[in-house]
Amino acid sequence: MIRFEHGKYDFNNNVDFCVGTGRMGLALQQNYLEQLALVQKEIGFQYIRGHGLFSDDMSIYHEYENEDGEIRIEYNFTYLDLVMDAYLQRNIRPFIELGFMPNALSSGEQTIFYWKGNTTPPKDYEKWQQLIQATLRHLIDRYGLEEVITWPIEVWNEPNLAGFWENADREEYFKLFKMSFLAIKEIDRRFQVGGPAICGVDDVSWLQDFLEFCQKEALAIDTVTRHLYTIDNPEKQGRYSYVTLRDPVECVDELKTSREIIDSFNEFKHLPMHITEFNTSYSPDSPIHDTNQNAAYIAGLLAQLGETSASYSYWTFGDVFEEFGVPFTPFHGGFGLVANGNIPKPTFWTFVFFKKLKGACVYKGEDAIFVETKDGGFRGVIWNTSEQVLKKSILLPERNQSFFFMEKRVDQEVCNPLRVWHEMGEPSSLTTDQKELLRSAASPLILTKELSIEQTSIELPVLPHGVTYVECYPIKRKSDRGFNYQKINEVHIIHER
Amino acid sequence: MIRFEHGKYDFNNNVDFCVGTGRMGLALQQNYLEQLALVQKEIGFQYIRGHGLFSDDMSIYHEYENEDGEIRIEYNFTYLDLVMDAYLQRNIRPFIELGFMPNALSSGEQTIFYWKGNTTPPKDYEKWQQLIQATLRHLIDRYGLEEVITWPIEVWNEPNLAGFWENADREEYFKLFKMSFLAIKEIDRRFQVGGPAICGVDDVSWLQDFLEFCQKEALAIDTVTRHLYTIDNPEKQGRYSYVTLRDPVECVDELKTSREIIDSFNEFKHLPMHITEFNTSYSPDSPIHDTNQNAAYIAGLLAQLGETSASYSYWTFGDVFEEFGVPFTPFHGGFGLVANGNIPKPTFWTFVFFKKLKGACVYKGEDAIFVETKDGGFRGVIWNTSEQVLKKSILLPERNQSFFFMEKRVDQEVCNPLRVWHEMGEPSSLTTDQKELLRSAASPLILTKELSIEQTSIELPVLPHGVTYVECYPIKRKSDRGFNYQKINEVHIIHER
Amino acid sequence: MIRFEHGKYDFNNNVDFCVGTGRMGLALQQNYLEQLALVQKEIGFQYIRGHGLFSDDMSIYHEYENEDGEIRIEYNFTYLDLVMDAYLQRNIRPFIELGFMPNALSSGEQTIFYWKGNTTPPKDYEKWQQLIQATLRHLIDRYGLEEVITWPIEVWNEPNLAGFWENADREEYFKLFKMSFLAIKEIDRRFQVGGPAICGVDDVSWLQDFLEFCQKEALAIDTVTRHLYTIDNPEKQGRYSYVTLRDPVECVDELKTSREIIDSFNEFKHLPMHITEFNTSYSPDSPIHDTNQNAAYIAGLLAQLGETSASYSYWTFGDVFEEFGVPFTPFHGGFGLVANGNIPKPTFWTFVFFKKLKGACVYKGEDAIFVETKDGGFRGVIWNTSEQVLKKSILLPERNQSFFFMEKRVDQEVCNPLRVWHEMGEPSSLTTDQKELLRSAASPLILTKELSIEQTSIELPVLPHGVTYVECYPIKRKSDRGFNYQKINEVHIIHER
Amino acid sequence: MIRFEHGKYDFNNNVDFCVGTGRMGLALQQNYLEQLALVQKEIGFQYIRGHGLFSDDMSIYHEYENEDGEIRIEYNFTYLDLVMDAYLQRNIRPFIELGFMPNALSSGEQTIFYWKGNTTPPKDYEKWQQLIQATLRHLIDRYGLEEVITWPIEVWNEPNLAGFWENADREEYFKLFKMSFLAIKEIDRRFQVGGPAICGVDDVSWLQDFLEFCQKEALAIDTVTRHLYTIDNPEKQGRYSYVTLRDPVECVDELKTSREIIDSFNEFKHLPMHITEFNTSYSPDSPIHDTNQNAAYIAGLLAQLGETSASYSYWTFGDVFEEFGVPFTPFHGGFGLVANGNIPKPTFWTFVFFKKLKGACVYKGEDAIFVETKDGGFRGVIWNTSEQVLKKSILLPERNQSFFFMEKRVDQEVCNPLRVWHEMGEPSSLTTDQKELLRSAASPLILTKELSIEQTSIELPVLPHGVTYVECYPIKRKSDRGFNYQKINEVHIIHER
Repeated sequence: MIRFEHGKYDFNNNVDFCVGTGRMGLALQQNYLEQLALVQKEIGFQYIRGHGLFSDDMSIYHEYENEDGEIRIEYNFTYLDLVMDAYLQRNIRPFIELGFMPNALSSGEQTIFYWKGNTTPPKDYEKWQQLIQATLRHLIDRYGLEEVITWPIEVWNEPNLAGFWENADREEYFKLFKMSFLAIKEIDRRFQVGGPAICGVDDVSWLQDFLEFCQKEALAIDTVTRHLYTIDNPEKQGRYSYVTLRDPVECVDELKTSREIIDSFNEFKHLPMHITEFNTSYSPDSPIHDTNQNAAYIAGLLAQLGETSASYSYWTFGDVFEEFGVPFTPFHGGFGLVANGNIPKPTFWTFVFFKKLKGACVYKGEDAIFVETKDGGFRGVIWNTSEQVLKKSILLPERNQSFFFMEKRVDQEVCNPLRVWHEMGEPSSLTTDQKELLRSAASPLILTKELSIEQTSIELPVLPHGVTYVECYPIKRKSDRGFNYQKINEVHIIHER
Repeated sequence: MIRFEHGKYDFNNNVDFCVGTGRMGLALQQNYLEQLALVQKEIGFQYIRGHGLFSDDMSIYHEYENEDGEIRIEYNFTYLDLVMDAYLQRNIRPFIELGFMPNALSSGEQTIFYWKGNTTPPKDYEKWQQLIQATLRHLIDRYGLEEVITWPIEVWNEPNLAGFWENADREEYFKLFKMSFLAIKEIDRRFQVGGPAICGVDDVSWLQDFLEFCQKEALAIDTVTRHLYTIDNPEKQGRYSYVTLRDPVECVDELKTSREIIDSFNEFKHLPMHITEFNTSYSPDSPIHDTNQNAAYIAGLLAQLGETSASYSYWTFGDVFEEFGVPFTPFHGGFGLVANGNIPKPTFWTFVFFKKLKGACVYKGEDAIFVETKDGGFRGVIWNTSEQVLKKSILLPERNQSFFFMEKRVDQEVCNPLRVWHEMGEPSSLTTDQKELLRSAASPLILTKELSIEQTSIELPVLPHGVTYVECYPIKRKSDRGFNYQKINEVHIIHER
Repeated sequence: MIRFEHGKYDFNNNVDFCVGTGRMGLALQQNYLEQLALVQKEIGFQYIRGHGLFSDDMSIYHEYENEDGEIRIEYNFTYLDLVMDAYLQRNIRPFIELGFMPNALSSGEQTIFYWKGNTTPPKDYEKWQQLIQATLRHLIDRYGLEEVITWPIEVWNEPNLAGFWENADREEYFKLFKMSFLAIKEIDRRFQVGGPAICGVDDVSWLQDFLEFCQKEALAIDTVTRHLYTIDNPEKQGRYSYVTLRDPVECVDELKTSREIIDSFNEFKHLPMHITEFNTSYSPDSPIHDTNQNAAYIAGLLAQLGETSASYSYWTFGDVFEEFGVPFTPFHGGFGLVANGNIPKPTFWTFVFFKKLKGACVYKGEDAIFVETKDGGFRGVIWNTSEQVLKKSILLPERNQSFFFMEKRVDQEVCNPLRVWHEMGEPSSLTTDQKELLRSAASPLILTKELSIEQTSIELPVLPHGVTYVECYPIKRKSDRGFNYQKINEVHIIHER
Repeated sequence: MIRFEHGKYDFNNNVDFCVGTGRMGLALQQNYLEQLALVQKEIGFQYIRGHGLFSDDMSIYHEYENEDGEIRIEYNFTYLDLVMDAYLQRNIRPFIELGFMPNALSSGEQTIFYWKGNTTPPKDYEKWQQLIQATLRHLIDRYGLEEVITWPIEVWNEPNLAGFWENADREEYFKLFKMSFLAIKEIDRRFQVGGPAICGVDDVSWLQDFLEFCQKEALAIDTVTRHLYTIDNPEKQGRYSYVTLRDPVECVDELKTSREIIDSFNEFKHLPMHITEFNTSYSPDSPIHDTNQNAAYIAGLLAQLGETSASYSYWTFGDVFEEFGVPFTPFHGGFGLVANGNIPKPTFWTFVFFKKLKGACVYKGEDAIFVETKDGGFRGVIWNTSEQVLKKSILLPERNQSFFFMEKRVDQEVCNPLRVWHEMGEPSSLTTDQKELLRSAASPLILTKELSIEQTSIELPVLPHGVTYVECYPIKRKSDRGFNYQKINEVHIIHER
């Protein structure tokens, strides 16, 4: 029996601070922007973070030889403007990730992904600094200083992996960080700059070393950033990866360790830690992402991540992504909250539901969280990561009015577009009708009732892998003159025969 | 057990031919046009018919005295153009009803409704003819002759009621009809003209007399029109009317009688009969209209009306209406398929579902109708007007492929916006959130499954007052390389503890 | 020669504070909302004021007899919500005018206009107060107190005319004002309440008496309101009124007199004076409204009205109006900035241009006004109310960069949709092509040039009845590598023959 | 003096048959689709043709090694569906160009353009045929056979250039053509297939050889295709090419030669010849494309190309293109009718104007063309490729009604966005205000007048490089009661002083 209590629970709800995205250049696409529009309409994130700002498809950095045989640099901000305009029009701002390396500025040929992001250090750190500064100055010219300094900046992505940073070279990354940090702060000290953007490989020693480096170099960093993925042992079959999920307690503990390392430095104590990527699987070919189980598991994380972290950016908002190439089918285990065809996945709703949890936390448990609302009602989310039906009851607050009670259920029976698509025969090309049906079948089931003043508790069964949103508020009935709901339901047919 | 059979059932599905609307002038309103857009997107009617073309708010007919003291006539088509443009933009065309009387052309002061439509004969029949001709000529100028002659025309509305036609004067109506008919046919003989637009009061003798009159006067009418309402004994409480429903068999028999009268005239045998209005209650204050029961009852009619009638126009598509004044609340028993706030009522879905029943009828019973589709699948609607759960089973066609099977359920539990609104406290002013919730709660529940080749039948329970749409088609599964739906569902969490 | 000077000119630019509209109920119409959207996109007013809040088509006030024979009151806010929602969605707020009288609450049968606004005192002042309070409370419930108290309130309209207020009864108006004022302030003292909303008939004595009444009754009014029309002697022909324009100096003097009367009261000194209606002709059948001459004349007023007045609300934003009935033709001398068919009239552009005059005034003359901009450039409007070409030159500011110079011309040759419509044959029904052509022909001619550093002045000819907007700002040219504009213009065709 | 004559002039107006586009993958972009929407709204082409259907960014062709070490083929139609859906939604259909080579299917590494289209023959012609057939079958599945067979097909692009086809190997192209042709016709004989898609290098011998090849191999081709560019000697400076224009007579003669070659074959006589690309410069860095001169020159071609050709596809509709990389500035000499920022270039209007020339041709000269319209009026285009003002007069048709006369002028003064952008300082990043100003400054000047019955001729001056559209139709004036246009213009101000 859930009993609400005041002042007991800590719930720092940063669910809408940031969301991830595929490489920046994809933001030119119509399809991408439609998915972003849906996410912004229903959830509304503040920031968006992705790779590839400086990759060649954004076409920012150019060198050419002039008539005297000298090498000159040119910057092209045509596509950057299009992307930033598109973001701002959809009421979202960039969480800037500096990377990857323009080929013309790179020291080597190592690339990552289908879209070939160059992951080698700059051939010339001064030109790298100039590139950062030219880019920021351009953004400031176009959008204004007061706007642009609110955009957080992170240096590179997962340098602790050799694929993302040649040889995972720690010293080289620290150099990159320092040069980047200094270049940014020269423009305006107020920029919020952070690193080391690591994932969970050697994270403890990386973080310790990074902070020691900053300490030694007297770099007054503003934030610390890292990633969180929660699977083990992906098994590959054909194009797909099948995974197992780690114990969420263990995952949260990983973050606590990071938090403790940060807080162990006097200079950095209590600095905001941003989880600039998180998800279950780290691979965009994992069907888990499309499932109800993912939705329930993520709910459990969203209830806890705010304890250690200033934000946690789900990787990614949509399935226009391309790291492993162009997907063959609409559902393909991509990271997105939204599948191609603009179909919300179950996890989309987890975010929609948590976004509504504003107010003081009055209950937080292993599988449920509740806040109270100003009007005397409450809102909550219940999730079920198990294979059995979960039965929760809530002890209702005392009240002198009826409650309007609403449940929105997302579970394998009623809101499972992956299953419907499977039953359709797993078509790779969706017709308009199929897309509409999948979208319709990807909405929560809504159940409502009136709770009389006398009712003291309510039962809430949640199916396996289900996530349920609950909202309850007091009502003042004021029926229109002569309107009698009971009487309406007494109509009958006069049969002659 | 429903067994499909070929060639046995007669189902003349004219569900989308025409729909009713409040007075024409309301089509200027934003709200009205939004409701119409929703109806056209989801159902898509060909024609729309309403009152008030010549009423004063459309401002068409004017008289003035010139400097020599002579009375001159002016026509103003400003609002008519706006209305017709708005219709055509939404891909719907007028089923023209000639009426009511401009005050300046009227012989008396009797009016009907909150909006005061004058229901007296013209003071001068020649001016009436000129008004009709001027209007048609204007429409032809603007939209082209070939377009305008496809718009059916009906003379007046329910002249058999004294409220709609002074004294329900039969001879006077016949005169009006003749003068109108001759005026129209003088413009172009191809116009499809009909009457007498009666409702079910004295309908037998009215229809007989009307056809005898046409016979005698050699008026080669193109269609016969009448109305159908299916309630008895409305009981008024405050602003609302509570009704009982007549046996649908009796209602259908009423139409058969009309059909027989028509067919008894050599001149008129087999002329199309248009039900230019039908609904359960004839009063826009009857909460029955907003219920699931209405949806189920109307489904039963839609399965049968095509037997006698070339069309049957549900009165009305939306709740912007105003005959009894401006409604105090979003749900108020209005005629519409859509409630104010753009919320589909249960009956809306009955029309959506029947619209999909294209193809040869393979089953038609008291509570279900099925057609087959070209791909070897089938579609059907099942309805339950009773207070008990209805259990239907379908014997599935033999096949060499699996079927994708889909049910869309509209019933009191899952698609009942009136109940949700009641539980909210029956608010007269809806907030944006409330409107969105009501719209979400006004969607069918969608259930899907795959039917293996071996499965021979399927059970379909329908809740009391429920309407279920069923669609089934063969699928060819072609899984992407490595995609294994079973394996996806075997993911589990590794708990450390 | 115009020479810019700092600190010399007083220009209180309130052009976008408020705009007028036909009766409130028209805001339900699609057509009306399209015109409002255009006006808001291009100009962007803060408030909108019109008649008819309490008139019967808004359907707010109702009385009925209950079962015990007692008269009870009901309020219906269905349409009020629709109107207010529509306003707020278009980023405009109501400047509330309390009036006219619901028929059920009226003491007499006098009405005004085609739409029959009742202009008699209430039969019961207490019920009038309840109506005001119920309405404000409803608005506060729906939109929040902090929002609603920013909406100014004015009591009635032009009570100094017998058509608008039975017998133009001064004492009765004062009573109405007092009762209204007290009722509003009882809800929240912060509401900004004003009157007497008079036009220029007996205005001096009315205003004096009104303020003495307020003084005597200790009514701490927040604003004083009046109207301004600037024509004499309308001559009626058929449906139209032909006018002569008064000397603008005289018109402005009328306002100064009002200002002086207000300032002569210690209690009311410096209270904001709102011109809650102004235009040239006070009659919506005056073709002057559609002309370029109107645009030029209004420009002259806009430059000066801020000297005395906190706002001046052009009557009206659009031509969906209906006071004299439904117009027969798109151009018909309506008050609007926009003609039916969504065609901007010349005066529309006068407002667009003045809206851009933000910054310190550096020149203000009889036919021109200029402000400087922060980037070192300037903006201005020049108007020509005469029949001859006006030649203005501007002494350019000294500068160390070139200027980009732009002129937007609205004159009889290049932006005169009334003339084009006349040449088309004055069609009453516009085809889509005609509407598009008229809209295209209703745009200013744009002329641009580069002003080199050396250029010291520029000539600006303005055609008779023309209004020209001028904008000038410094540029930094940074040609792309190899781009040579001169060279582009030297292309030629190699003729073989 | 232009005199209209019947039956004398041949004008085969195919202006709207087809338009060109950058590589197919760009059709995923929002920006691209906005430009296409503008072009379709104002001009409305039937077909669109571009490169890169089979290039790697469309991601259609894939090979992989299965567990047994065999190479298998997979097709991915995800992006193809998005592109085709986007085209059809904008009411345009593909003119399919088969090319370039998927890297996985290529025999070599030669690529063309920034986006690296592989231009080598297939490593395996059977797999190439399978690719074509799989693609067509997929399109037929999705869009229906009757739709897809209306899409013309062309084999490869400009194989007579070594950059587009390795070594410009003629025999290898003929093989490619034959294999492609046979593969297509195996699917459905009704497909309209053509080649050799050559530009004007060695075109005479290529075309002769190609047709002899088809003759010898008994390939019953449906169409012949080639390109036309009309410049000489581009001179490169930095990023830009400056050109001279060839004599249009010479260009048209080039096509006549092609026509004669085709007609010299009995098998191919009168086959449709499609100019699947044409423009002035063949290089997307030629500022000529952005000029008024281009507009005038193209007008001259549009008047004549229909004499020899079934269509002539302007290369390209918009400036989202990328063959030479991402442009640094909005105006950059790209091929498009529309500049980035969705700004119509002068040549855009040439197409808009020619699109309106439907009807019998009554005049065709070196610098003007006119058609008559059904209502007794006429339409025409006049262009001026010279450096002097061109003065044309038209002898007006006799008539018994006034004419409404309209001119739309596109010339360097009034519709020259390139000049305005230059004057702005050639900004590489446009603000919203700048974009709006450029769009406004990119509209034709509209001048109208009424031509009385007596007027016999009209003078039409056209500025250097100007293009003027003229439209004239009879009017029936029917002034509203009391409306007197003369009187309106006599209003004056009564000055007191």
